[in-house]
Amino acid sequence: MPRYKAPLEDFRFLYNEFLDLSACAGMTSMEEATPDIFEAVLTEGARISEERLQPLNAIGDEIGCKFNEADGSVTMPDGFVDAYKDYAGAGWTGLTADPEYGGQGLPVFLGLAMSEMINAANASFAAYPGLTLGAYEVLHRYGTEEQKKRYLPKMVSGQWGGTMNLTEPQCGTDLGLIRTRAEPRDDGSYVVTGTKIWISAGEHDMVENNIHLVLARTPGAPAGTRGISLFLVPKFLVDENGNPGERNGVKCTGLEKKMGIKSSATCEMQYTAAKGYLVGEENRGLAAMFTMMNAARLVTGIQGLGMASAAYQAAVDFARERLQGRSLAGARYPDKPADPIIVHPDVRRMLLESKAFVEGARALGLYTGVQLELELRHPDEQVRQRAGYWVALMTPIIKAYFTDMGSEVANLSMQVHGGAGYVRDTGVEQFVRDVRITQIYEGTNGIQALDLVGRKLVGNSGENLKAFFEPVQAFVAEHAENDALACYIKPLEDAAGLLQETTATVYSKMSSDPEEAGAASVDYLRMFALTAMAYMWARQAVVAHGQLEKGRGRAAFYQSKLDTARFFMTRMLPDTLSLGERVRAGAGPVMTPSDEEF
Amino acid sequence: MPRYKAPLEDFRFLYNEFLDLSACAGMTSMEEATPDIFEAVLTEGARISEERLQPLNAIGDEIGCKFNEADGSVTMPDGFVDAYKDYAGAGWTGLTADPEYGGQGLPVFLGLAMSEMINAANASFAAYPGLTLGAYEVLHRYGTEEQKKRYLPKMVSGQWGGTMNLTEPQCGTDLGLIRTRAEPRDDGSYVVTGTKIWISAGEHDMVENNIHLVLARTPGAPAGTRGISLFLVPKFLVDENGNPGERNGVKCTGLEKKMGIKSSATCEMQYTAAKGYLVGEENRGLAAMFTMMNAARLVTGIQGLGMASAAYQAAVDFARERLQGRSLAGARYPDKPADPIIVHPDVRRMLLESKAFVEGARALGLYTGVQLELELRHPDEQVRQRAGYWVALMTPIIKAYFTDMGSEVANLSMQVHGGAGYVRDTGVEQFVRDVRITQIYEGTNGIQALDLVGRKLVGNSGENLKAFFEPVQAFVAEHAENDALACYIKPLEDAAGLLQETTATVYSKMSSDPEEAGAASVDYLRMFALTAMAYMWARQAVVAHGQLEKGRGRAAFYQSKLDTARFFMTRMLPDTLSLGERVRAGAGPVMTPSDEEF
Repeated sequence: MPRYKAPLEDFRFLYNEFLDLSACAGMTSMEEATPDIFEAVLTEGARISEERLQPLNAIGDEIGCKFNEADGSVTMPDGFVDAYKDYAGAGWTGLTADPEYGGQGLPVFLGLAMSEMINAANASFAAYPGLTLGAYEVLHRYGTEEQKKRYLPKMVSGQWGGTMNLTEPQCGTDLGLIRTRAEPRDDGSYVVTGTKIWISAGEHDMVENNIHLVLARTPGAPAGTRGISLFLVPKFLVDENGNPGERNGVKCTGLEKKMGIKSSATCEMQYTAAKGYLVGEENRGLAAMFTMMNAARLVTGIQGLGMASAAYQAAVDFARERLQGRSLAGARYPDKPADPIIVHPDVRRMLLESKAFVEGARALGLYTGVQLELELRHPDEQVRQRAGYWVALMTPIIKAYFTDMGSEVANLSMQVHGGAGYVRDTGVEQFVRDVRITQIYEGTNGIQALDLVGRKLVGNSGENLKAFFEPVQAFVAEHAENDALACYIKPLEDAAGLLQETTATVYSKMSSDPEEAGAASVDYLRMFALTAMAYMWARQAVVAHGQLEKGRGRAAFYQSKLDTARFFMTRMLPDTLSLGERVRAGAGPVMTPSDEEF
Repeated sequence: MPRYKAPLEDFRFLYNEFLDLSACAGMTSMEEATPDIFEAVLTEGARISEERLQPLNAIGDEIGCKFNEADGSVTMPDGFVDAYKDYAGAGWTGLTADPEYGGQGLPVFLGLAMSEMINAANASFAAYPGLTLGAYEVLHRYGTEEQKKRYLPKMVSGQWGGTMNLTEPQCGTDLGLIRTRAEPRDDGSYVVTGTKIWISAGEHDMVENNIHLVLARTPGAPAGTRGISLFLVPKFLVDENGNPGERNGVKCTGLEKKMGIKSSATCEMQYTAAKGYLVGEENRGLAAMFTMMNAARLVTGIQGLGMASAAYQAAVDFARERLQGRSLAGARYPDKPADPIIVHPDVRRMLLESKAFVEGARALGLYTGVQLELELRHPDEQVRQRAGYWVALMTPIIKAYFTDMGSEVANLSMQVHGGAGYVRDTGVEQFVRDVRITQIYEGTNGIQALDLVGRKLVGNSGENLKAFFEPVQAFVAEHAENDALACYIKPLEDAAGLLQETTATVYSKMSSDPEEAGAASVDYLRMFALTAMAYMWARQAVVAHGQLEKGRGRAAFYQSKLDTARFFMTRMLPDTLSLGERVRAGAGPVMTPSDEEF
């Protein structure tokens, strides 16, 4: 089974040397966020992930969640209830939540590191606090004062869970087709009736109550997405003192049998005249839900990264231990019956692709986390706005690219393992199965690409794009004269240039034919992601290069950053060339075939 | 569950219009191979695949093989024994086998179509006759007359199975580490003792006897791969009349729990003083086994293609039925609540990538099958040799590219399905799990790439390469003047030019540093595969274009060939650009990092 070690050295590098946190200075969330607190969160987060969550990962996969038909309850695999108790008891569910409701109020970019670690250790487990946090965020923003006081404290403490109920049997992506009804009652509440499917954490035995956020239509609501409202439907109705009482008319009617994340309960939920409470304005439910979706998309990207990180570690361990064949350049370990497979160039290629993704993505995720923190809490509106442009642009990119690469890296790890990776004992095939969902849920990666091209590229009058290109250009200009850095800076400059050119092409084509946007979207997103990664690798290289010049130690760590940056620039970034060609080919080759030709 | 329909129209196109079978005229294998026989094999092969094998695919996944600890027996899931009886009874196990031993002696390129269909329908099932055929081929080539008479007829009839026993716990790829011992006895037989793992079809209840081919060392044999011999070890010892009698000292001691192909019994086999018979010469076992491996590699590629074909069909069905959202260009089906998702550009992109792979690979597979038939059975040695160059070159390419793309297409099908693809009901996730092994077994795809660069590129004094480039250049020259074909011919010409250039680069770099070969290998193989696919698509386009000009009907089919060829040329072939860059980057970025940096 994989042994997970949280990448603390890399986190410390990113938080202490790579990220510029001076922009956050003076924000309330930073008051408690001293270096000591960072270190404590990282080491304690590592400890619970490695020692409590990771050991349950394979057990959870083997046993899965059990649905009890008689009462609609769901039983978690052995050990999960206790682990969750420890997790919530240590305050992890409230790490970034508002202190007014019992949270620790730490910055979201610190929460992302924790998110990566728990997803690396046990992605099924991580789904539960993740969903509660998403529901918390919607209620915190759109709920009434009374709703917040009644529901948030116990969600923040982890005693209660939260869920999001969007999908119905007839609709996934297209929420305009929702049929669940909500009829008003005299007391201001609603009667909610309908069926929701694929509800993660819809029912389980780790929490005392579950707060469902449900999209539904009120009588006479406009058709389509403009007639959808958001309702809070607790599993147990809650009195004014915040105590759960009567069971509400909602129950789980079945669990999906899935390829992976088998301890994440994917429920069919039946709402039968359940009592619900409107959250936000009537017919504005989708906008409220999208708040949650955006945060969820970022975290979904981090899930992909987390599992990639764990799968990469397993591959490195195996490649060091497995003796097989000899180095092409002659025996490197002549005293052994064969060399460890880490000596083989193609094994190293697979490991380096994984490492370059994992560390580059970690940098991009945390960098975006800082921007998100600025967007949410900075006192200056202009700072908030500008940070928001970056976040808006990067959210679909991170969701899609991190999860596509999460699958890619898990598969590379299996490939490094060879046959040992295909059998269940090594635990690698679980990563492949578990991470695969991240490319699909919270909006498929195709939908993310449409969001990027259709909304983010044209939105905010081009400010989103400027929020990316301007700092990149400034960074390139700042280091253009330094020959020692040219092998990192020049490829970034070229890629950014090609991306700008391609952006202009896509923009002009899609203004006359909207299908050009769709046909270009996925390749364009990948090209953008690679360029953003190149920016992160160039920045890491500059920091590492500076530290090496200062000669203060940890030379091996910094050298590894430089070597990995070089690998990324020479052997991964060139994919942008092909992507550019694909995009230039336009919609014709995609749209010309008739529907019958397939 | 997926409904599989064998692609008969495409097979007919390839056999009747695309392939040039005139080179095979007069060969013994072609005597019975009339168009009527082709048609009968295709339609009957389709029938048994669709009606008998496909319905067992999901059941097999759910139930899997059962190991019975008490007696070491393995029980197949319900229905498999009967299906196998029908399959063998109809003569499918002997389709391409030597008539002298009861086979039908049909050409191997016809067997490949059958192989695709049964793998599309039920890859776990397909493994069993596939392995028997591999063992048959080794014995047919290296066995003594007496061995052939004793063992082959019942392997050809399917009453007995065959297996290949290479891997041991301490070695997979590196067979030099084999420890199984074979000690000679006075009667000329050997006593075989050792443990073999990952033995597909090692034990099951569909056959009366199982003929194991086992790699082992004789006393005093040289160390490494030059001291390995091949032994035939029957499960039940066979008397001179060919009747099985006494149980031999070989038994299954356990089954692997795997990610997929759960009805393919992956056995640990214990040989305890088992009686074995030398096949071929002592210490020449690896060469004999590689005969089988080469055929097996081609068939492994076809497995990837078969599952891709079935997964693609499932995606098309789903994309036509699932209503979700509206076309970006406005509602295409305004009378429905939403458009079917096949209208969306990115869904079409995924379907077209799948279709372009499946049909291009089918053409390349059968084209190579014709060359293999020529290599094996043509009376003229020069023809055999030249055909053999093509086969030698294409075997690692087909194995690696078809299986990589098999996984890719299965994952694209899941992506088209969205959440529905991740739950088990639709059967798509089974394709993803089942096909994944094909990238690993019969030599990982990294090993295939090393074979291409390290052996095939330099082997036969460059004749292998000529066998590819010469016909491509002749084909390009033949059609260079035809403007209507330029959009298919020009991209092929460019890709072939880039491939030649890259070949020269790799060749010159690796002569001074063998690690350059390993570092370039996987990207180089992919570039070669894409160029070979471009050749196949250009050839298909030329045929389709000609048929459309003649105007004899089936216009939609030919138009689809042209549209798909165009898609391939404009949106898949450009990947060669990036691959060229990656290869040019050389071994430096891969080999520079120390082993400790990972």
